[in-house]
Amino acid sequence: VTSILSVDPRTGAAQRTDLHDSTGEDVLAAAGRADIAAPALAAMGRARRADLLDGIADALEDRRADIVDAADRETALGATRLNGELTRSTHQSRLFGEALREGSYLEAAIDHAGQTPLGPGPDVRRMLVPIGPVAVFGASNFPFAFSVPGGDTASALAAGCPVVLKGHGSHVLTSRLTFEVMAAAAARHGAPDGTLGLVLGQSAGTALVTDPRIKAVSFTGSLSGGRALLSMINSREEPIPFFGELSSLNPLVVTEGAAAARGAAIAAGLLASVTGSGGQLCTKPGVAFLPAGASGDALVAKLVASVRDAAASVLLNRRIFDSYGEISERIARAPRAEVAARGRSSAGEGFAVAPTLVTTAARNLEPGLVEECFGPLLVVVRYDGTDDLAAALEQVPRSLTATIHSEESESERAGELTARLMPLVGRLVYNGYPTGVRVCWAQHHGGPWPATNSQHSSVGVTALRRFLRPVAWQDAPQSLLPEELRDGDVGVPRRVDGVLTLP
Amino acid sequence: VTSILSVDPRTGAAQRTDLHDSTGEDVLAAAGRADIAAPALAAMGRARRADLLDGIADALEDRRADIVDAADRETALGATRLNGELTRSTHQSRLFGEALREGSYLEAAIDHAGQTPLGPGPDVRRMLVPIGPVAVFGASNFPFAFSVPGGDTASALAAGCPVVLKGHGSHVLTSRLTFEVMAAAAARHGAPDGTLGLVLGQSAGTALVTDPRIKAVSFTGSLSGGRALLSMINSREEPIPFFGELSSLNPLVVTEGAAAARGAAIAAGLLASVTGSGGQLCTKPGVAFLPAGASGDALVAKLVASVRDAAASVLLNRRIFDSYGEISERIARAPRAEVAARGRSSAGEGFAVAPTLVTTAARNLEPGLVEECFGPLLVVVRYDGTDDLAAALEQVPRSLTATIHSEESESERAGELTARLMPLVGRLVYNGYPTGVRVCWAQHHGGPWPATNSQHSSVGVTALRRFLRPVAWQDAPQSLLPEELRDGDVGVPRRVDGVLTLP
Repeated sequence: VTSILSVDPRTGAAQRTDLHDSTGEDVLAAAGRADIAAPALAAMGRARRADLLDGIADALEDRRADIVDAADRETALGATRLNGELTRSTHQSRLFGEALREGSYLEAAIDHAGQTPLGPGPDVRRMLVPIGPVAVFGASNFPFAFSVPGGDTASALAAGCPVVLKGHGSHVLTSRLTFEVMAAAAARHGAPDGTLGLVLGQSAGTALVTDPRIKAVSFTGSLSGGRALLSMINSREEPIPFFGELSSLNPLVVTEGAAAARGAAIAAGLLASVTGSGGQLCTKPGVAFLPAGASGDALVAKLVASVRDAAASVLLNRRIFDSYGEISERIARAPRAEVAARGRSSAGEGFAVAPTLVTTAARNLEPGLVEECFGPLLVVVRYDGTDDLAAALEQVPRSLTATIHSEESESERAGELTARLMPLVGRLVYNGYPTGVRVCWAQHHGGPWPATNSQHSSVGVTALRRFLRPVAWQDAPQSLLPEELRDGDVGVPRRVDGVLTLP
Repeated sequence: VTSILSVDPRTGAAQRTDLHDSTGEDVLAAAGRADIAAPALAAMGRARRADLLDGIADALEDRRADIVDAADRETALGATRLNGELTRSTHQSRLFGEALREGSYLEAAIDHAGQTPLGPGPDVRRMLVPIGPVAVFGASNFPFAFSVPGGDTASALAAGCPVVLKGHGSHVLTSRLTFEVMAAAAARHGAPDGTLGLVLGQSAGTALVTDPRIKAVSFTGSLSGGRALLSMINSREEPIPFFGELSSLNPLVVTEGAAAARGAAIAAGLLASVTGSGGQLCTKPGVAFLPAGASGDALVAKLVASVRDAAASVLLNRRIFDSYGEISERIARAPRAEVAARGRSSAGEGFAVAPTLVTTAARNLEPGLVEECFGPLLVVVRYDGTDDLAAALEQVPRSLTATIHSEESESERAGELTARLMPLVGRLVYNGYPTGVRVCWAQHHGGPWPATNSQHSSVGVTALRRFLRPVAWQDAPQSLLPEELRDGDVGVPRRVDGVLTLP
């Protein structure tokens, strides 16, 4: 059995670790422990699971320096970004705790027995219950917020589901460290053994999603990887929900008014959004539609100058580095497109690449130019009037987000763009940038496939809903009902005989 | 082009109709009209869509006699059942109207801009919007409530989604009549052309689910049919949600106490639930676990006597008739099972079959005995103590419902059974029968696959959620927000900065 390597993206140097790919037996054991833990984790109840989530957040904070240091060595994302990401992770863990204490995520409802148009009706009570053990696949680009201590893990635990993590091969030591910190915190807070498990390696991932004890899968990664998992899941005897966050281009449109009024500011903001975290964010704006004419020209000139000055980005791993080279080259060579600027590259060492700006005209837009390219690449599409823009937008693939920059005087225009872009995406951003997703109650991070499955969010409190299923109780004795469905004030919002009532 | 036949199940006589299988072009046209209708139907808003649903209910009521008559000729379900089912359909249409007016189904949430643990956060507002055109497959066994005027149609229209119906071949004239009544009502209420469409024939169904303009599929039918559609859907460039209601055995357990206290009443109620609507309800209890010993013997004796007296059931169509013959024969011939009683059969004509009671011992239970058999067949499993029962329940497939009959003095026992059965099902019924699903806010009609997909209901107000997707607006100008997300009191419950607030 060969040990897994941990690679420093800044140098490409690989160090041997004491970690190995999980075996089939390891996966069976992890799924089995999760299955056994499920009823006990559910039975902990909302208040104790909320304490558990707070406890996990505290434990991660206690080891902040070590954790950030481990992740920086494996991801080259830098201490500032990684400290922010860890704060985001602990914040979301606590936010799910708040949601548990508040309780409306249960969607509790009671219809008392009574007369109906079809005669006497029974007492019916409904709420959401944990779906069962969940497999969570860590992402390369977020060693915390979409990995072991990420939102998928926190939302599944909040829902009451044990989690078997598949750690990403790009940051295995970080995965193990965060896992150990969290597992110890879980044990201290009385969570059953098996609440958290960790497996490593691609074959472990496929074994995991086909294990009959796993009841939902959450995956952040490539479209091809997602499709492969989905196909395995649908060939299970029991197909289960697959929540994939796969690919997103995130179009950004600048109106003529906005380009004229604040072109320089938009150029600066856009470039920061494209190059932040090495352009390796799922919400990176990959294509920007800028108007033809003088204001658009000035905006592009500003972008060109800034890209030429831009530092090299160190990408996360060799696969992403190779893929960036390949896709950015393909885009640069597209007919009727041109490379308008390249930033600096640090030749030779590690996975550093140069930020790249490609320009084309809307009428020349073709599918090859609107392919997601992980890394600091932006395609600028110049459009000449609304029809030209509308035709070009037809080619944009469905995404997590779309962004509109417009002036107050252009509200009709902004309305048309909103109507055109909304069917394509899950979040509309106005006069801002799509990166930097706020973790809050109203957030939605999703979009029509292949952004994600269309109906669920992987960020924000409603991410909980992915790991819950409804159950109805008909004429149940009080003692057999979950606490939240019993008679009297039970401290959670409920719909009683059709009327939403607050505690 | 051959015309579709309409068959009278009571005689097997087929009459030629003026209907034909839809062509590929018909399907393209229907999906195209639905796609064009989608924004206009969404733009009607909640109040006008609620009026539309009321209007459809009124229009169906106006034609009640004709509609019930048409359905009785094609289904043989009888006027009493069909009148009840039409009432259920109009009731659910109006109930979704109520849900629209109330508005909390939107899950509207506002997080104002403000300080967050990661610095200043933008204004984020979220609500659910229509998913787009929906394909609804009518079921054989509910010509109204799960067909053209059914809950899937009503919930999709309520959500704001145009519906292309695939009418079931078992009741094509009923499908056309109800479609025409509803389409006319929709037009009168200002719904856009294309709000409702109807296609017929199996190839039309497959063309429909692969049409890129269809954004969700709802299907009530066989497991094999559901699996075939799911496989087509997952090979689409954009996989879309598939809501299948496929197969359900609905175990019913009687404790020793309940058998002793009210065995005769349980026998009567159980048999009525097994034979109602010819045993062709998805919630029919297909297997009953009865205790060994004198009380259980008496209950079985009562069942045997009642089954021998039971009238023949006329099944819906030749396929179900043939399938009942095949599956009931296979079950009857299972090793260590015996046919304890058969009811009367009307030899020769139409699709009439005899109700059948099969008995076996828990230790002899095998997968072949717990297969869903559409029609009036019940397998009784005698168990000897809790361990014997627990082992037998391990073999029961996941279902829509499970039912427990127990006495008040057996609450610990009932608790154990609840814990054991809940992971298998979506609804738990106490001291009643699972058939006769109440249409109300708290209902859940679903269960782990193959009952349905585990997370959504096809009955009750929450069935709406299947046809909605979340969208978030970040820093949007007031005028570009949906009305329900604007500042001020907009008349719907919302979560504002984390706090659920009523209008």
